Amino acid sequence: MSNGHIFVGEVIGTAILILFGAGVCAAVTLRHSKARASGWIVIAFGWGFGVLAGAYTAAPLSGGQLNPAVTLGIAIDTGKWGKVWVYLLGQLVGAMLGAVLAYLAYLAQFQANVREEGDGETDGPVATLGIFSTIPEIRNPVANLITEIIATMALVLPVLAFGLTKGLGESGTTALIVSLLVVGIGLSLGGPTGYAINPARDLGPRIVHTFLPIPHKGTSDWGYAWVPVAGPLIGGTLAGLLYNAAF
Amino acid sequence: MSNGHIFVGEVIGTAILILFGAGVCAAVTLRHSKARASGWIVIAFGWGFGVLAGAYTAAPLSGGQLNPAVTLGIAIDTGKWGKVWVYLLGQLVGAMLGAVLAYLAYLAQFQANVREEGDGETDGPVATLGIFSTIPEIRNPVANLITEIIATMALVLPVLAFGLTKGLGESGTTALIVSLLVVGIGLSLGGPTGYAINPARDLGPRIVHTFLPIPHKGTSDWGYAWVPVAGPLIGGTLAGLLYNAAF
Amino acid sequence: MSNGHIFVGEVIGTAILILFGAGVCAAVTLRHSKARASGWIVIAFGWGFGVLAGAYTAAPLSGGQLNPAVTLGIAIDTGKWGKVWVYLLGQLVGAMLGAVLAYLAYLAQFQANVREEGDGETDGPVATLGIFSTIPEIRNPVANLITEIIATMALVLPVLAFGLTKGLGESGTTALIVSLLVVGIGLSLGGPTGYAINPARDLGPRIVHTFLPIPHKGTSDWGYAWVPVAGPLIGGTLAGLLYNAAF
Amino acid sequence: MSNGHIFVGEVIGTAILILFGAGVCAAVTLRHSKARASGWIVIAFGWGFGVLAGAYTAAPLSGGQLNPAVTLGIAIDTGKWGKVWVYLLGQLVGAMLGAVLAYLAYLAQFQANVREEGDGETDGPVATLGIFSTIPEIRNPVANLITEIIATMALVLPVLAFGLTKGLGESGTTALIVSLLVVGIGLSLGGPTGYAINPARDLGPRIVHTFLPIPHKGTSDWGYAWVPVAGPLIGGTLAGLLYNAAF
Repeated sequence: MSNGHIFVGEVIGTAILILFGAGVCAAVTLRHSKARASGWIVIAFGWGFGVLAGAYTAAPLSGGQLNPAVTLGIAIDTGKWGKVWVYLLGQLVGAMLGAVLAYLAYLAQFQANVREEGDGETDGPVATLGIFSTIPEIRNPVANLITEIIATMALVLPVLAFGLTKGLGESGTTALIVSLLVVGIGLSLGGPTGYAINPARDLGPRIVHTFLPIPHKGTSDWGYAWVPVAGPLIGGTLAGLLYNAAF
Repeated sequence: MSNGHIFVGEVIGTAILILFGAGVCAAVTLRHSKARASGWIVIAFGWGFGVLAGAYTAAPLSGGQLNPAVTLGIAIDTGKWGKVWVYLLGQLVGAMLGAVLAYLAYLAQFQANVREEGDGETDGPVATLGIFSTIPEIRNPVANLITEIIATMALVLPVLAFGLTKGLGESGTTALIVSLLVVGIGLSLGGPTGYAINPARDLGPRIVHTFLPIPHKGTSDWGYAWVPVAGPLIGGTLAGLLYNAAF
Repeated sequence: MSNGHIFVGEVIGTAILILFGAGVCAAVTLRHSKARASGWIVIAFGWGFGVLAGAYTAAPLSGGQLNPAVTLGIAIDTGKWGKVWVYLLGQLVGAMLGAVLAYLAYLAQFQANVREEGDGETDGPVATLGIFSTIPEIRNPVANLITEIIATMALVLPVLAFGLTKGLGESGTTALIVSLLVVGIGLSLGGPTGYAINPARDLGPRIVHTFLPIPHKGTSDWGYAWVPVAGPLIGGTLAGLLYNAAF
Repeated sequence: MSNGHIFVGEVIGTAILILFGAGVCAAVTLRHSKARASGWIVIAFGWGFGVLAGAYTAAPLSGGQLNPAVTLGIAIDTGKWGKVWVYLLGQLVGAMLGAVLAYLAYLAQFQANVREEGDGETDGPVATLGIFSTIPEIRNPVANLITEIIATMALVLPVLAFGLTKGLGESGTTALIVSLLVVGIGLSLGGPTGYAINPARDLGPRIVHTFLPIPHKGTSDWGYAWVPVAGPLIGGTLAGLLYNAAF
């Protein structure tokens, strides 16, 4: 795979992932959405099927890794580091593009969110940021970091064991299984921090939140931004090392 | 595939799709339905498994495209336009047939809906139209069009990348993956407009709503009808062009 | 396949199907169940994964048809009628066995249901019957029959198109797809009558309800019992004829 | 497979299973969890996709049995008892490890659970134990035992029929089907006792609950602990015997 194919594949695939993921958060959060307040099951399946859509689309171009923690785990496993920077760059650009697309898909809702008074529960600046980036339920950096490390290991270790170093999504069922795995992580381990488990997934949309002229938006909470980057990178590294030791 | 096989396949497949799709909207909306008010997760899985049922049934006859936006994207990708009109005709006829079948399946409910007073929330003319065709939460043609374009691209681009030009559903898992993709689009991108993402899905049932003697039905809202036709056609075209450029 | 294998396979497979199906109705209905009032999505997935469990288990013995309407549709398609009676007998016996197993699994709940006063919503004789057999939301034999015919055609036509005449569940994904199809039928078409779509599924548990000494049980509603038998048989026949004509 | 591979595989696989399973119970139960009170559908899918994650990860090392009842059923079926003790030991150690990981993932939530007053519904000692081990809705050892026996047979009989004696998860779809089977058992048969259906799943986390310094935890309810051990072992044995007799 050429650098160009990898970059384009990761941009498109990660953009689709974040379009679905930020989209489902908007769907459940924003007023005037048919899916408003439809619950955690909707959030978890929306993100999971975003992985499905993005990974299958990107598979023929880049293998569809879509996640720096996965890329890191695969590099530790295979020892091939030469193209890692292309994957990471594509993932970050794609995550930003996906966040913009989700904003456009819910454009009228974001505008209505501003024109009317918030009800203090789902509207307002915090809920708006929550559509783009993760916010912990209890702000405790050490605990939040542990949660993200464990949840990311629960993603990357199975992905490595599936033999996905050969390319996520080449097989007919591999990307399906990984997408259901991500549903499961959301259901089971998303409670404390909203399961970033992917540095690009959190950082890209947070950058977009900072620069996009969303009416009445609040802080982008950059003080927390290091946790959903460092946690997944540590988790991906530990998973790669554990995989090499145990398998 | 002969024109006759294609036409019959698309009629049967699209009829099944709309039977499930309009059926699940009736199930969640109508009084005296065991599934009443069971939420957005039910809507999204009902439509998605309608794709599963319709695509697998139609696959041996027509490949099971069931959606003019998909047909358009495939034609742009392959350059084969000769049978497009047969697909489109079958899809529109099938969508109308499916809407009639859904009406018959919920016949007693539609009649009871009329005989009693609506409670202002789920019964009444607007809710009845919502069983057949899409209604935006915020009526804003430009924003609604953007939403439908983005959501349709999120359908057609993965479908093309799956190599479905060879026939949707021939493989054992392809139609399953596409059906879960449609579940995901519903969960993530259905909030603003109810995700037509298929011109036949919206237009066929709207025609049926206009002519079927549903008691106490209201307007068929033809002023909005162009959005769920134009949006998916533009989205399918853009997806086809993007696929040719990037892959 | 010998008659003995077919009979044992259909008994075990249908018993598992009804254990899951009556089980999930008990889970959602009965007081002192952890799943009480957990909604229609739980009902639909519970029945669907009952098909998954039963069909895979029965597949090596009998092909796992588990439903007289499916058996009838396959016989019309293939013209082979010699072993139909073995399938039907196994399915009815299995459905009765499954209903007894579900009763035993929820034994303490059924007993508590009796010892305490019902709250008028989920407890009581009607709710108890609803765990075993289907009850229409609006009692209208013609409309109920139409609903069951349409819903059964939506099951049997795709099953025939999947090429399942060779044995439901032999392939790795066939039974999975059929089980998700059944989830979809439940979500979309179960609202009016509770989707029997299987004469054995309704008749077997109704016989058990009649004879089992369930405390404080009410009528077994035999006046309605012909609808969930005749509807699916008509639907299976029509699906078989349509399949032969169109494919 | 060497004893070392089997042990490591079962430890890792069962740890992942319990991380997801105890995790989803924490997610739905604990205050300050984004998934709080999100319902039975979340519980059932969380446990099921825990099976998916654990079984696929363990497959290349040990075949991914993860459950003494499954190991027992396979041993009865195949007559090979030599490595059963390695499987059981790995499963128990893994279940304890998984419970600790789930505790760490929800560390801040467990601490907040203690610092604030419980609301009498989801917080407090009983809810905390319910994250680790099963608690019957109605305490009736005979009925609880019957429920666990039936539910475990509904797991092990299909698993044996799938031909999983050759290694759970080697095939691309086998572990997926087993995981959905577990979702179905949860939905349909989990109501009375919380479906242990796996002695290690209940015993390992109960040991952890006993020794882990969880603030304000109550009793570990050792009086009930024999039921979710004996029931699944009896169920696995009966399933193995029935499989040998019928297939």
